[in-house]
Amino acid sequence: MQRVVRNMAGDELRGILGEHFKVAGKLNRPRTVELLARSYKVRPEKALPWAAALEMFHNGSLIHDDIQDGDVVRRGEPALWSLVGTGRGMNAGTFLMINAQVCLRDEALEKDEILDLSELLARIASEALEGQCLEAKLNRLENLRQLRGLYMHVARLKTGALFAGLAQGIAVLAKLSVAESVRLRELFGELGLLFQLQDDILDLYGDKQKGMQGNDVMEGKVSFLILKHLELYHYNLEGMRKLLSRGRGNIDRGDILVLKEQLVRDGTLDMALEELSSRLASLMGGELFTKRPRVRSTVESLAGEIVTPLMHLEGMQKFFGQALSNMLVGQGMGRQI
Amino acid sequence: MQRVVRNMAGDELRGILGEHFKVAGKLNRPRTVELLARSYKVRPEKALPWAAALEMFHNGSLIHDDIQDGDVVRRGEPALWSLVGTGRGMNAGTFLMINAQVCLRDEALEKDEILDLSELLARIASEALEGQCLEAKLNRLENLRQLRGLYMHVARLKTGALFAGLAQGIAVLAKLSVAESVRLRELFGELGLLFQLQDDILDLYGDKQKGMQGNDVMEGKVSFLILKHLELYHYNLEGMRKLLSRGRGNIDRGDILVLKEQLVRDGTLDMALEELSSRLASLMGGELFTKRPRVRSTVESLAGEIVTPLMHLEGMQKFFGQALSNMLVGQGMGRQI
Repeated sequence: MQRVVRNMAGDELRGILGEHFKVAGKLNRPRTVELLARSYKVRPEKALPWAAALEMFHNGSLIHDDIQDGDVVRRGEPALWSLVGTGRGMNAGTFLMINAQVCLRDEALEKDEILDLSELLARIASEALEGQCLEAKLNRLENLRQLRGLYMHVARLKTGALFAGLAQGIAVLAKLSVAESVRLRELFGELGLLFQLQDDILDLYGDKQKGMQGNDVMEGKVSFLILKHLELYHYNLEGMRKLLSRGRGNIDRGDILVLKEQLVRDGTLDMALEELSSRLASLMGGELFTKRPRVRSTVESLAGEIVTPLMHLEGMQKFFGQALSNMLVGQGMGRQI
Repeated sequence: MQRVVRNMAGDELRGILGEHFKVAGKLNRPRTVELLARSYKVRPEKALPWAAALEMFHNGSLIHDDIQDGDVVRRGEPALWSLVGTGRGMNAGTFLMINAQVCLRDEALEKDEILDLSELLARIASEALEGQCLEAKLNRLENLRQLRGLYMHVARLKTGALFAGLAQGIAVLAKLSVAESVRLRELFGELGLLFQLQDDILDLYGDKQKGMQGNDVMEGKVSFLILKHLELYHYNLEGMRKLLSRGRGNIDRGDILVLKEQLVRDGTLDMALEELSSRLASLMGGELFTKRPRVRSTVESLAGEIVTPLMHLEGMQKFFGQALSNMLVGQGMGRQI
């Protein structure tokens, strides 16, 4: 990534990007590439360009997301656009997303691999952008009946596409059969979706290093918790619509606290945790695991990263039965989440 | 381009992009690819993907530009972001810029050509984005001594990079020597710069289908005319700074009319036209022409497109001597500018 920024960015962009990269993220995606590459015996020097490309694209999309959402804190620091202005932030994000493919120009990769991975990257980008565009429609909360379908569709595009594409890229490098490639893609798409569900829960009940809890609510987003709540309490649609349309300036810490308590009391949080845990369990029971035990350990490790930041929640112990939680936390606890 | 949008965009993005593409632009860039390809005997089916990639990227960058500049009119219609919102406009622009490279996946191109052109596209994008970022610095009007250098640097990046890269792409397809490729690149970079100078003049004295004249002034931009004016009248720096910092809401048609008249009366417009004409003349006298007469006709045609929309201006006849203007207009008048 550094090589590409050095080669491709002018002084001005390099300075702006320096601000953004002062704090590294959790590096979930490159670590997933590394683990998955290992389980398919893909050489690390081949996996590295793919990991760099995905992380570079992901960083560009985070910069754009913060602009679109009006988020002022990222990774515990001021969001890039709030330091350099919206226009320059937009340009820096676009730079990263476009130049992600340049990370793939690497001697370790064959030409066909570069071409396939570049196209895959464009596909990932297109799906993620489609998800971003659809999110506005989701947030209008127009139709309760289609709410779940739309929420899942958006999450699969917004977050799932990158994990699905990540796995497909490893399938390209490992020269897997089409059938196995599709299964791997689907498995990781579902994992990406679960990361989104976790992220939505953490927005209200965790520390996302975004300054304070409840950002999603202030941005008027229909999160997994809101979806769950409305599935339980249809009659609350109008109230929820009102809350979500109030906007950042008109919601304070007190409102967020009230909402948090309400969703605990009315069972929404429990139901959300239960769905997450049962989705995780069914994912771990999939057929791919019997044939590829090493893929299992990669997925377990990721599942650990999904579960661990939620472990402090009261409901967690209830839903993530001792066995499952031991296994997951055994994998996940050791590493920096 | 249609194929790529159909294959890569989801329903939501496709709908948004449909709005943008309702009105086609001037297609300067693809037509330049076509002309230049012909002069180097590059087969049209090889030139077409390159033309499509550049036009797709260009459209994406226009969408982002309008957001950054707050421009509400594009090609005589509402700018995309004003129809679909800033966030969705951003996503649509990013989609086009990222997927431009997918236009290059074409059977007519060899793998090496696809790889080279893709990287070139990323290079063009990076330079154009750097130009966008630097423009903010230019507009601060901090240092009169470095103003010309900074203005030219920004224009070469913002507009020149695409034309220079366009020509380099044809050099790749025509398998030109490095030396000739560099010369061609420089020639077209200069042509791109002249397009920017023309564009800056037309902002005040032409019809850019942006709703009204003087957009650059309202956006606080240091245009070629402002540069020329300040080179002639140093003492006007503070006044100009004040004018440019007033912002869209505080400048009306009357202010723009006063400025237009002032720049005519004080000789700024004449000097600007003179510099443009002498730069054009020196470009046409370059050494590349003696060896490649067919390149000459391409450049003449483009020069015609630079000059023609300016022909209604009084100063033009004076500076573009009869011979030059005959030649240029002979090439350019016939086609739709």
